[in-house]
Amino acid sequence: MTHEIAVIPGDGIGQEVTPAAVEVLEALEIDFEFREADAGDRVKEVTGEALPEETYELAASADATLFGAAGETAADVILPLRDAVDSFVNIRPAKAYPGIDAVRPETDLVFLRENTEGVYAGHEDRLSEDVATLTRVVTQSASRDLGEFACEYVEDGDHDGFTIAHKANVMRETDGVFRDTIQSVADEHGVETDEVLMDAFATKVCLDPEQFDVVVCPNLAGDVLSDLAAGLVGGLGLLPSANVGPERGLFEPVHGTAPDIAGEGIANPAATIISAAMLLEYLGHDEEAERVQNAVETTLENGPRTADLGGDASTEDVTAAIIDTL
Amino acid sequence: MTHEIAVIPGDGIGQEVTPAAVEVLEALEIDFEFREADAGDRVKEVTGEALPEETYELAASADATLFGAAGETAADVILPLRDAVDSFVNIRPAKAYPGIDAVRPETDLVFLRENTEGVYAGHEDRLSEDVATLTRVVTQSASRDLGEFACEYVEDGDHDGFTIAHKANVMRETDGVFRDTIQSVADEHGVETDEVLMDAFATKVCLDPEQFDVVVCPNLAGDVLSDLAAGLVGGLGLLPSANVGPERGLFEPVHGTAPDIAGEGIANPAATIISAAMLLEYLGHDEEAERVQNAVETTLENGPRTADLGGDASTEDVTAAIIDTL
Ligand SMILES: CC(C)[C@H](C(=O)O)[C@@H](O)C(=O)O
Ligand SMILES: CC(C)[C@H](C(=O)O)[C@@H](O)C(=O)O
Repeated sequence: MTHEIAVIPGDGIGQEVTPAAVEVLEALEIDFEFREADAGDRVKEVTGEALPEETYELAASADATLFGAAGETAADVILPLRDAVDSFVNIRPAKAYPGIDAVRPETDLVFLRENTEGVYAGHEDRLSEDVATLTRVVTQSASRDLGEFACEYVEDGDHDGFTIAHKANVMRETDGVFRDTIQSVADEHGVETDEVLMDAFATKVCLDPEQFDVVVCPNLAGDVLSDLAAGLVGGLGLLPSANVGPERGLFEPVHGTAPDIAGEGIANPAATIISAAMLLEYLGHDEEAERVQNAVETTLENGPRTADLGGDASTEDVTAAIIDTL
Repeated sequence: MTHEIAVIPGDGIGQEVTPAAVEVLEALEIDFEFREADAGDRVKEVTGEALPEETYELAASADATLFGAAGETAADVILPLRDAVDSFVNIRPAKAYPGIDAVRPETDLVFLRENTEGVYAGHEDRLSEDVATLTRVVTQSASRDLGEFACEYVEDGDHDGFTIAHKANVMRETDGVFRDTIQSVADEHGVETDEVLMDAFATKVCLDPEQFDVVVCPNLAGDVLSDLAAGLVGGLGLLPSANVGPERGLFEPVHGTAPDIAGEGIANPAATIISAAMLLEYLGHDEEAERVQNAVETTLENGPRTADLGGDASTEDVTAAIIDTL
């Protein structure tokens, strides 16, 4: 069976790291059909639209999408793309790799971020010159989908349960629905959970990241807390992510366009290649996913390394080394 | 002039650290009248109400309130108390002290947290079995008050300007109003600012806290990001806070009730005593505020120390040492 993969490099180093990840996918014995499309600041300058209709449609019909990065237009690109693939969960592993400088080298977390609602549902009103409002939406149905996913995730993997991070002491109805629904799904599955207030999580994860493993969060909490974990493992540079929907997914590095080094061919392709490993797993190619993940980890440890990790290798050198190690 | 100070020890170690801070205030040549009142889990058990009307009224009429901690009922106590003193800003310094174990010892930040609105405005609805909503409110007027305060804060202190942390790329109207209003107040004052997305802040502050100084945030962002900074300086144990209103204020340690050690007389009173220093400054006793702050810092560095800092001194020992050092 051929998998149709939409490839959206976007802006800045997205143009360099996305082709690198495609090269790695091409090196496997899997039948892919890659279809490239535009999005981001550059295409907006030309066409007036950061996310052209064709790009949206492509992501909405492909089996999976590999996305690079977008600049100023990031929100206009990435939020509709998450919607295009019907993604209800954003998986964000934050793991410190051996040999990489980290504030907290023992960090090894996975965030399962609700990907459709919360403040991202985006009903805003300017009621008057003085007053603006935003309607935060939380539903049992979206919380249930996330809870089911979280249960399967811990059952399939090597996890004892998950932690629900929320702010239900203040957002009693909305985060109350979130917490209670996920909790009851977990009870149905017999999956162990605990809960933590999102502010307390921020303190605790700095002091001792090992007390957490899988962390299930509302949308904005997942955004902020996973970026915090990124800080603990040494930055966004190595973090992959998967926006998972029932029938398709969108895979992207957590980092941005890195305008300071864009165009020089020295961007680190690791996060995008690990995102490609998540794509492989999503499509059921678990063995290849593991091969890619291991090849990246080996290369991170032994080199060659790009400048962000203190080396002087090019994107191409690192990609070639990863392919050699496969 | 006599200052009337409401004293609300609350639950757990609040009962131990609040009297300690009162002792320190009593050791100064200032005319205080202390009036104690109840709040928290204990009084709720007895009366059914976590925040008795008299306590609210006392805080609403006293010149300043010193609060300890509350347990399960924290939100039911602290949010109305902030309202009782008409507090529009929560000042949260997060500073690593010499000799104290910290993830990032170079951290020295002050958060100015909007204290009245955002998701805390608290209009929640259960629209159906499935759907809950919360109306997040941001006004120009509250943002302007915070902006004015932030400008005076950096002008009076040793600060080059401030950073606005927000999520206006997603919450375009609401955080847009927040950012733009504060920005324009700063422009009127000729105060320098920069801005950062709150998720990016979470990464950056871990990697290099010294790039920030004064950070101005919406309510929930201030809650989470200041707790993150607490993690970087070694925990909530030493963090003070001031809820400032135009005519009165509420001063409280950021830590909670510490049920594991409550009643043993070994709680660290430092955060509450530094909060009392903020109370002194608020009431115009700048010199005494500095004396108290310095006495706490000297004692933190030279001991005696409570168990949380690896010592075996009692709350009383530490309080006595601080008073001796004044
Ligand atoms: C670009 C922005 C809208 C996005 C988000 O907030 O989800 C980004 O921060 C992310 O986490 O992928
Ligand atoms: C207890 C809770 C309502 C409170 C808040 O969220 O403001 C606390 O976390 C704080 O930061 O003082």
